[in-house]
Amino acid sequence: MDSVKVGIVGCGTVGSGVVKILLQNRDIIEERIGKKIELSMVADRDVEKVKKLGVPEKFIVNDGFKVVESEVDIVVELIGGTTVAKDIVKSALENGKHVVSANKALFASYGEELFSAAFENGVSIRFEASVGGGIPVIKALNEGLVANRIEKILGIINGTANFILTEMTTRGISFEEALKIAGEKGYAEADPSLDVDGIDAAHKIAILASIAYGGWVTINDVYVKGIRDITPLDIDFAHEFGYRIKLLAVAKPDNGKVEVRVHPAMLPEDHILSSVDGVFNACLIEGDFVGPTLYYGMGAGQRPTASAVVADIADIACGRGSSVPVSLLKRGAKIPVKRPGEFVSSFYIRFTAVDKPGVLAKISSILGKYNISIKMALQKSIALNGGVPVVMTTHEASFKTVKVAIAEIDKLDVIVKPTFLCMIEE
Amino acid sequence: MDSVKVGIVGCGTVGSGVVKILLQNRDIIEERIGKKIELSMVADRDVEKVKKLGVPEKFIVNDGFKVVESEVDIVVELIGGTTVAKDIVKSALENGKHVVSANKALFASYGEELFSAAFENGVSIRFEASVGGGIPVIKALNEGLVANRIEKILGIINGTANFILTEMTTRGISFEEALKIAGEKGYAEADPSLDVDGIDAAHKIAILASIAYGGWVTINDVYVKGIRDITPLDIDFAHEFGYRIKLLAVAKPDNGKVEVRVHPAMLPEDHILSSVDGVFNACLIEGDFVGPTLYYGMGAGQRPTASAVVADIADIACGRGSSVPVSLLKRGAKIPVKRPGEFVSSFYIRFTAVDKPGVLAKISSILGKYNISIKMALQKSIALNGGVPVVMTTHEASFKTVKVAIAEIDKLDVIVKPTFLCMIEE
Repeated sequence: MDSVKVGIVGCGTVGSGVVKILLQNRDIIEERIGKKIELSMVADRDVEKVKKLGVPEKFIVNDGFKVVESEVDIVVELIGGTTVAKDIVKSALENGKHVVSANKALFASYGEELFSAAFENGVSIRFEASVGGGIPVIKALNEGLVANRIEKILGIINGTANFILTEMTTRGISFEEALKIAGEKGYAEADPSLDVDGIDAAHKIAILASIAYGGWVTINDVYVKGIRDITPLDIDFAHEFGYRIKLLAVAKPDNGKVEVRVHPAMLPEDHILSSVDGVFNACLIEGDFVGPTLYYGMGAGQRPTASAVVADIADIACGRGSSVPVSLLKRGAKIPVKRPGEFVSSFYIRFTAVDKPGVLAKISSILGKYNISIKMALQKSIALNGGVPVVMTTHEASFKTVKVAIAEIDKLDVIVKPTFLCMIEE
Repeated sequence: MDSVKVGIVGCGTVGSGVVKILLQNRDIIEERIGKKIELSMVADRDVEKVKKLGVPEKFIVNDGFKVVESEVDIVVELIGGTTVAKDIVKSALENGKHVVSANKALFASYGEELFSAAFENGVSIRFEASVGGGIPVIKALNEGLVANRIEKILGIINGTANFILTEMTTRGISFEEALKIAGEKGYAEADPSLDVDGIDAAHKIAILASIAYGGWVTINDVYVKGIRDITPLDIDFAHEFGYRIKLLAVAKPDNGKVEVRVHPAMLPEDHILSSVDGVFNACLIEGDFVGPTLYYGMGAGQRPTASAVVADIADIACGRGSSVPVSLLKRGAKIPVKRPGEFVSSFYIRFTAVDKPGVLAKISSILGKYNISIKMALQKSIALNGGVPVVMTTHEASFKTVKVAIAEIDKLDVIVKPTFLCMIEE
């Protein structure tokens, strides 16, 4: 039986999970793939920690570059970040090593450079764990749906944000309270901004869009808005209109461009993604032949993420190549990305206005002037920051026009607070 | 760019879909995989039909064995059945051709023989389309979750049966009425028994169980019960107890054996599979590291099924091997399968009894004698075939014991109709 030598760089949460799998399930994995997997080297600053996992001391080093320069066939980069991790990955590739990584930020920033280096050196990069944790969604998109033009990707791909919105929805609590619970449960970092500001989801959708549309989409191409300004009030209004609020990642092609965005969105309550709650992730991928398909599971955590990393190791051991289309391996593949001003959507808009006659007329006359067509409107006598909420949903309209109209409305003396705007995904 | 020559045997619904994909999406597929796909030969008795799809006449033959004996690299078997299809596949393999197929019956009956022939001849078989239509669930199980011991597979993998049960549930109609609608919509065949009697789902779960547990499970190893005796009354009672009735395919390991079954089951209404409605399919796969994962999409139909067939062609073109574990390729891999008498489950039981005092006491004393513990009981004064329904759910009990107890109860003179029994999957 052939064997493949694996070196792990970074033995934190995910790295320890990979070691655990290789200790517990190696027999069944080797039987399935018909190759031996040898864990030859583990690099971590904390040698004692690695020893406690059951890795013999002779296999442990304290410098990731020692792994890169060793005899391993596959370098598993699990240190995260885009600085040292990039150097490790780049030199691994240049040393003719295959790379497995869970690093979404790295590939959403330097995908083109790194895959191009892999191509030039005749080695593979796989990074299933970078999106959707243990769910094999990159494999599904790149291999399973290879026959399809991808019409749309809708993802709930940040478990922390989804947990917070689920808590807010089911318990009627504020963002701050829900964030606190997420922190207590270990779902939110001390600095939660990567998660709640949508940046982590933006990294992930950039990767999925790159694979689906065959050109590198980077984090800078993604329109990003987080969930900090979602209030229980908007969650309630959403419910009255038949919607759930989710932090949604969207990628879809339109007229030779790709639209890639991450933001809170209202989804119909009977939409399959509306029932994805808590820390779970799900990705809805629609192809022109296959129709809608959904992939669901744990989007984070030691064990699910390690499951995806080991699947990548097995795939490389079986010679299954990189986890992006061959067309992406060559430098320079680019696709035009839409600017936010080009987005078209239906919207939920909440104005905060003084409780006087004529307010609705003033607002709707400005919307009318911009040809923004109102679908439903609701005015409630709830005191809110010195005003009352006036809530509307619109038919499809240009994001740019809606923002211009709202800016004009917000200058009206009947408006007492900046207006809240949220896209609706039907 | 390397190229791969493909020959299709059988150009019916799925075959025509494959031709359509290769005509419409070949550009994008070839870009993604970096290989050319040449459709070199199509065999069908109806040559005119194939010409109408846009296949040049010189590529069309009327005998599948001509494809097998030609220069093609991959034979795509899409004639179905287990007689001629088996001969075609066997001789293709012996002629050194890779095989792609959508034929669940073939592999659930002759998987061991055919994969062993593939192994001996150094070629691959892929059959993604055989389970879950366009959903890449075999790929997920065999490759994406390779690092996991599979703790459970729960599948809704027959779209026709699921459509019928969904219609019965949402519209309160009988099995016969729902079957008629399924026929009118083209979801049910003239002879619907493969679908409604659970045989198609049994073929599919046999294949999934074989992959998950590394030993061949055949259709004869699967306990199968269909949905013909499901009534609107049981659907209503299920709802009162908080359950939905689905035709469920189950595979799970227990104590060195594998339990593989297909039957109507009650699922809690908030179970993720309970919301899989209509012709949609979904498969919940739980691994020891990844936790629960779900794969959802169109389980049948020309376009989704063809999507899976073409993905297999692409995988073979990329040298990705067979879609079963290497351990399955060798003849003789067997795993012990549980007999139905060994199943343990909680149950829903509906007795039809005369409307007299003491009936419940008689029934429950027999259940008590067999140590079957009642969880909930409900007696209603609805006239039903000369009796009233007495409905119960039980705690976990042996299937064998429950059947013995029911046989004894059914002999009581207060029981007027044979008792209805349904497993509950919590």
